[in-house]
Amino acid sequence: MTKPDYEKFFSSRINLMSPSPIREAVSKIAYKSKIKPVISFAAGEPDPDVLPRDIYAKLASEIFLNVKKIVNYSPAEGVPDLRDEIAKFMKEYESVETSGENIIVTVGGSQALDIVARIMLEPGDIVLTENPSYVNTLLCWRHYGVRIVGTPMDDEGLRTDLLEENIKKLKNEGRLIKLVYTIPTGQNPSGITMSMDRRKHLLEIASKYDLLVVEDTAYNHLVYEKAEIKPLRSMDKEGRVIYVGSFSKVLGTGLRIGWLEAPEPIIQKIRYSKQPMDMCAPVPSQYIVLEVLRRGLFGKVKAKAIESYRVKRDLMLSALDKYLPELKHTRPVAGMFILLWLPEKLDSFKFADMLLDKYDVAVIPAAPFFVDGSGRNVIRLNFSMAKPELIEEGVRRIASLVEELSSK
Amino acid sequence: MTKPDYEKFFSSRINLMSPSPIREAVSKIAYKSKIKPVISFAAGEPDPDVLPRDIYAKLASEIFLNVKKIVNYSPAEGVPDLRDEIAKFMKEYESVETSGENIIVTVGGSQALDIVARIMLEPGDIVLTENPSYVNTLLCWRHYGVRIVGTPMDDEGLRTDLLEENIKKLKNEGRLIKLVYTIPTGQNPSGITMSMDRRKHLLEIASKYDLLVVEDTAYNHLVYEKAEIKPLRSMDKEGRVIYVGSFSKVLGTGLRIGWLEAPEPIIQKIRYSKQPMDMCAPVPSQYIVLEVLRRGLFGKVKAKAIESYRVKRDLMLSALDKYLPELKHTRPVAGMFILLWLPEKLDSFKFADMLLDKYDVAVIPAAPFFVDGSGRNVIRLNFSMAKPELIEEGVRRIASLVEELSSK
Repeated sequence: MTKPDYEKFFSSRINLMSPSPIREAVSKIAYKSKIKPVISFAAGEPDPDVLPRDIYAKLASEIFLNVKKIVNYSPAEGVPDLRDEIAKFMKEYESVETSGENIIVTVGGSQALDIVARIMLEPGDIVLTENPSYVNTLLCWRHYGVRIVGTPMDDEGLRTDLLEENIKKLKNEGRLIKLVYTIPTGQNPSGITMSMDRRKHLLEIASKYDLLVVEDTAYNHLVYEKAEIKPLRSMDKEGRVIYVGSFSKVLGTGLRIGWLEAPEPIIQKIRYSKQPMDMCAPVPSQYIVLEVLRRGLFGKVKAKAIESYRVKRDLMLSALDKYLPELKHTRPVAGMFILLWLPEKLDSFKFADMLLDKYDVAVIPAAPFFVDGSGRNVIRLNFSMAKPELIEEGVRRIASLVEELSSK
Repeated sequence: MTKPDYEKFFSSRINLMSPSPIREAVSKIAYKSKIKPVISFAAGEPDPDVLPRDIYAKLASEIFLNVKKIVNYSPAEGVPDLRDEIAKFMKEYESVETSGENIIVTVGGSQALDIVARIMLEPGDIVLTENPSYVNTLLCWRHYGVRIVGTPMDDEGLRTDLLEENIKKLKNEGRLIKLVYTIPTGQNPSGITMSMDRRKHLLEIASKYDLLVVEDTAYNHLVYEKAEIKPLRSMDKEGRVIYVGSFSKVLGTGLRIGWLEAPEPIIQKIRYSKQPMDMCAPVPSQYIVLEVLRRGLFGKVKAKAIESYRVKRDLMLSALDKYLPELKHTRPVAGMFILLWLPEKLDSFKFADMLLDKYDVAVIPAAPFFVDGSGRNVIRLNFSMAKPELIEEGVRRIASLVEELSSK
C-alpha cells in the first residue's frame, strides 16, 4: 500500500495559484469574531441589512412554484428572457445599445473574467492594468501565465499618458498586448473613478494601438455624487470593449449573477468555452434577478444601497480627517473602498494582524493589489459593511495603532 | 475607425474549444418544439414533474428570511454547515468516511471536473477514460490540451484488463498518465454500471501503476435494481480517488450544486484555484441543499425519482425489444440513458436530424462521446424526461425511420 506522490500529478502552472489574501483575511476575521466583536472594514460586499431579503423570499416562493424548469438547466448562455432584460438594463442604466444575443450570463463577474482569460490568455502574454488593481482578477489571470504590467492612477483614475508610454515600450519590444483591464468607476481597491477625459483617451489609445479593453463595471451602480461619467462601452464605436457586468454589489454577491457583453466573434468563443465549464449559471438566481429587473425593483434596491453607503462613506472620511489628518487616503465618489497609506516604514500585513489582535478591527492589506511589489504600507478600508455607529470608533483604533507603532 | 481583428487576441488553445453537441441539439429541439410537440429522449436531466418545487418554494421563502448572509459570499469552499452535511451524506449514502474539511462545494459536478483539470492537466498529458465517455468532460478537458485514450466497456463496465494493457503501453512510451476518469454507476452515455470485481481491479491497477482516479458519481443515486455496488472512493485505502459528487440528477440540475471530495494535498490546491474562479457556489442554492439534507428530504426525493424513472426505463426497454429487436442496445440498472446501435451504415447525426424533422422525436448522436472516432452509428436515448405514455410511440418512430433508411 503506497500513498501517491501528489506533486507529480499537478500541472506545472500550479505554483501560479496562490490563496486570495482577502479570503485568508476573512477567515481570520471570522475566527476572531467568534471570540470578540470585530469592527470589520475588510470584505467588499453589500450590507446584508440593505439587501431586500424579504423581496427575494417572496419572489423565490413564486418562481419555484410557477416556473416549471427552474431547477433544470438553462441554456449555457443564460435564461433567454434574462439576457433580453439585461440588454434593456444596459440601455437604461449604462446608455449601451446591445441585444440579448451579445450577452452571456455568468457565475458573477468573477467567472466572466475567468472566461475572458480562458479564451484569450496564454503564458507570456501581456495584460495592462491599473496599479493597484483588483486582486482576484490578478490571481485568476496569473493562473494563465500572463505578465501583468501596471500603470499608476491619480485622482482622475488611470494615468492614460503613462499607459501609452508603457504600450509604446512593450510594442517596441515586440510584445503582444492581449488586454487592458480597467475598473473605471469606484475602482477596487482605490475607490477612484476615472474622469471622462481619461475614458475618451483610453478608447483613443485602444484604437490607435489596436487593443481590446476589459471594462469591469462591478461598482457602476454605487455612485454617491453627481458625476458625469459614462461606461467605456457606451462610447465604444469599434467593438474594442468587453463589458463585464455584475449584480453582486447591489443585489447581493451570494446570488452569483454577472454577465459578459461583447462583440459577436468574442461571444461565440465564450459560448463554446463556457458550456463545459459549468453548464449554466444557477437557474433560481437567474430567475430572481429576472423578476427584480422585470418588476422595476433594481432602481429601488440601488437607491437604498446608495443612501446607506453614502452616509457610511462620509462617516469614514470624516473620521480619517479627524484622527489621521497627516496620512494620505483616497476620497471615493463611487464604490465601497478607501485606500489608506500608512507611514512608509509600516508593513500593512503586520499592521492588519496587530489591528485585529489588539484592537478588534479588520482591514485588508493592499500590497497584493499592487502588481509591482509596491504598496507595502497601504491598507484597504471597506465602508459598506460596517455599522455606521462603529465607523468612527474603528478609524480611531486604526489611528491608535498607527501612533503606537510610529512612536516606537 | 477600425474594427479589431479579434482572431489575433484569442489564445492558441481556442481551436480546442468546440460547441457541445448536446447543447446544440437541445437548441434545435427547443426551436422545433415551438412549432410542433416533440418527444424528447435528448437531454439528460431529471423530470421537472418529479422535482419537489413546492418544497423548494417553502424552503427558499424560509431561508431568505432567516439566513442573514444568504445573499452574501460564502467561503470559497462552500457554506461550512453544508460541507459537514455532505460528509454525513457520503457516509450514509456512499459508505465513505470523510469530513467537511475534505469537501469543496462547486457549481455542479461540471465545475468540479473543470477544477480538477485546472490544477492537474496541461498540454500533452494523457487521460484515460471509458470509451465512450461523458462528452462534456471530454470537451472541457480537451481545452487543456490533453490526449484522451479510451478503453472499451462491456456489460460489466470498463474492461480493466484492456485498461491495464493501455497503461503498460503508455508507460513503455514514457508517458505520464495524469488521470483515469470513470463514471462507474449508470455511466453517461452508456447506462452501464461497473461490477464490483472490475471496481476492485481498477483500484488495484491504480495502486500498481501509481495512478489517480476521478470517480464521477452523478448517477449513483439513481439505481433501479438491487445492486451490490459501492463507490470506488469507499474502497480506496491509498488516497487515489478524487470523488466528484452532484445533487443535480436527484435535486435538479438548475441549482448547480456539486462537490469535490479528495485527499488534503489536492483539496488545498483546489481551494487556491477555485477562489478567483467564481468566489463561491451560489449561496441560496447551497442553503436549499443544506436544508434538504438536514431535514432528511433527500431520501424521499430520490425514492420518488427512482420510482418514476424505473417505470420509464422499463417502458423504453420493452419498446426497443418490440420495435427494434435486431439492434443492440444497453440495459441500464442505473442512470438515465440507453445507448442504441443503429445499423452500421447509418450516420447518427443525419439520423437525429431526420428523426427530429420528420418524426418529431429528439435523440442525441453519440459519436462525440466516443474518444476514437468510432460510434458513428450510435445514438443516446434518455428515459427520465419523456412522458411515460409517449415513450413507446417515440421508439416506434425511431424504428420507422430505421426501416425507412435501411430499405433504401
